Amino acid sequence: MARIALDAMGGDFAPRATVAGALLALAELDPVHSIQLVGQTAVVDAQVRELLAGELSAHALHRDRLTIVEAPDVIEMTDKPSAVVRGKPLSSMAVGLRLQSEGHSDAFVSAGSTGAQMAMSMVMLRMHTGVKRPAIATFFPSLRKTVVVLDCGANVDCSATELVQFARLGATYAECVLGRPNPSVGLLSIGEEAEKGNAVTKEAHQLLVASGLNFIGNVEGRDLPAGGTEQHDLDVAVCDGFVGNVLLKFYEGIAPLMLETLTRAGIDKDKLEAGLRHLDYSEHGGAPLLGVRGVSIIAHGKSSPRAIKNAVKAAAQAVRSGMNDIIGERLAAASEGDVE
Amino acid sequence: MARIALDAMGGDFAPRATVAGALLALAELDPVHSIQLVGQTAVVDAQVRELLAGELSAHALHRDRLTIVEAPDVIEMTDKPSAVVRGKPLSSMAVGLRLQSEGHSDAFVSAGSTGAQMAMSMVMLRMHTGVKRPAIATFFPSLRKTVVVLDCGANVDCSATELVQFARLGATYAECVLGRPNPSVGLLSIGEEAEKGNAVTKEAHQLLVASGLNFIGNVEGRDLPAGGTEQHDLDVAVCDGFVGNVLLKFYEGIAPLMLETLTRAGIDKDKLEAGLRHLDYSEHGGAPLLGVRGVSIIAHGKSSPRAIKNAVKAAAQAVRSGMNDIIGERLAAASEGDVE
Repeated sequence: MARIALDAMGGDFAPRATVAGALLALAELDPVHSIQLVGQTAVVDAQVRELLAGELSAHALHRDRLTIVEAPDVIEMTDKPSAVVRGKPLSSMAVGLRLQSEGHSDAFVSAGSTGAQMAMSMVMLRMHTGVKRPAIATFFPSLRKTVVVLDCGANVDCSATELVQFARLGATYAECVLGRPNPSVGLLSIGEEAEKGNAVTKEAHQLLVASGLNFIGNVEGRDLPAGGTEQHDLDVAVCDGFVGNVLLKFYEGIAPLMLETLTRAGIDKDKLEAGLRHLDYSEHGGAPLLGVRGVSIIAHGKSSPRAIKNAVKAAAQAVRSGMNDIIGERLAAASEGDVE
Repeated sequence: MARIALDAMGGDFAPRATVAGALLALAELDPVHSIQLVGQTAVVDAQVRELLAGELSAHALHRDRLTIVEAPDVIEMTDKPSAVVRGKPLSSMAVGLRLQSEGHSDAFVSAGSTGAQMAMSMVMLRMHTGVKRPAIATFFPSLRKTVVVLDCGANVDCSATELVQFARLGATYAECVLGRPNPSVGLLSIGEEAEKGNAVTKEAHQLLVASGLNFIGNVEGRDLPAGGTEQHDLDVAVCDGFVGNVLLKFYEGIAPLMLETLTRAGIDKDKLEAGLRHLDYSEHGGAPLLGVRGVSIIAHGKSSPRAIKNAVKAAAQAVRSGMNDIIGERLAAASEGDVE
């Protein structure tokens, strides 16, 4: 019974990819869920009709779980996030998030400007008590389970306390949405010993030991693709948003290099592309913005219909799990613990 | 006419891999170059004899360019770098570096403890004027040319001035040793705009603009495997040692993940391993420790004979190019520029 607002106008391939993604999601979601397509009604409606008359005609039976919500303004990628918050109150992002803050929607998904989505989510959903800025959580495929890495770009120059907050947010997400009981948390650093790292990491290590989380200590870059250390599986890896963003984009750039290198080595390109698809993070359902009161999922700007579908499904799972309330409770409990 | 001291005792597969690497290098190097194998004479000599009597018998003709230099102490990976400097003056690292500081050798290569090599190189070779700590430069394969990334772990919590120094060191290395005229330098950050990044990066951006280097601006994680941005090829990428070390180890961990994923997708494992070999950074000849007066090359702890051979060849090229003197001149010129 989640009502998911989807920014129909956001992303490089909108509105076609977003509308198609919505239709694909409806087919896979439990029928209690519905989608609110937010955007310029005429444009969105025409896109829905075109897809239902054509390649997605089999999806016509889901049409009644799809509503279109008018949002006349469009955010351009060149718009500054801060300017958008006040300057475009009728953009699809503003309207979509307002639905949620006013109780008419349960989650928001967008493939539009990440900066704008973050700024607007902070203002319109507001933050959980004690959280100053949200963190972007992304999913790194590994040899074991997918690793939740955060922050991946919302925060640079983080304090040790913020890193611990990221750990709590990521652990709650891993538990509620990914179904990992007592998720393990690692601190990304340059050596496994507690005294390895930069000043903030070393301080965060000590705080994490005392955090009550299932802290497995420092992890290194290689432990992300490995999915853990020799001793422990890794569910959540914590780092500041500078390191996380560099890593995420580096990871994005690896597939083309692998593809080119292995094609040159005489391996069939189609086979490689099919094999590498498993490693495509867009398959893993968008990056949740954690710490806001509510659900706001950042989809990649280049999202395909399939990526949008996965982001919508991740949003539905976040709502269904009650993640938002649980995060609120845990942060409150942790801050009470600090006071005692 | 380079005399290269090789730490025969350093690395997971020493002395077999180091001695074999030395013999392989001699076969490929110009005959004016020689190698000093530093270690426990009896052990090293027995290893040389064994290899020359067996699989490397064809290399016997290079034996006269190989000398063995006695170093009775052995550094364990559990030894603290700071303790090793004073505590093991007769280790293979100390003896090998002393040969260079006393003018009996031109370069030093080791696959032993990175921390110990860095600490000892600083003390025994000393630093170029104005350099407080050396930087570790590594080579990232890309879709275009190999990118020199530094620092990869010698320095955490760097200042903006230190990042500029890394840029100068890396650019000189790229020019002298890799033969890249007027190498381009990018600052690793989380967006291409000058105002994107953490506090240190933003400050470093401004300093790099005024540095006289061929600064192409900020680069992002994805520009490393791409070998540059849409506008510019990338020769040197600068970051602090925390970010660089996390990235390097992450990159190390990617190949096993790719191999496993693509094998599961039905692609032949041998073909994949052959194809991925091109991306193995150990093929690229060890990581130079830049900023010390002299040549000190860090080989990977798991170096194969082939990796040792490449590290020795990189050392020979560094000597032949006069890199060390040129770095000294450029740093002096830059610091004079600062004074004016």
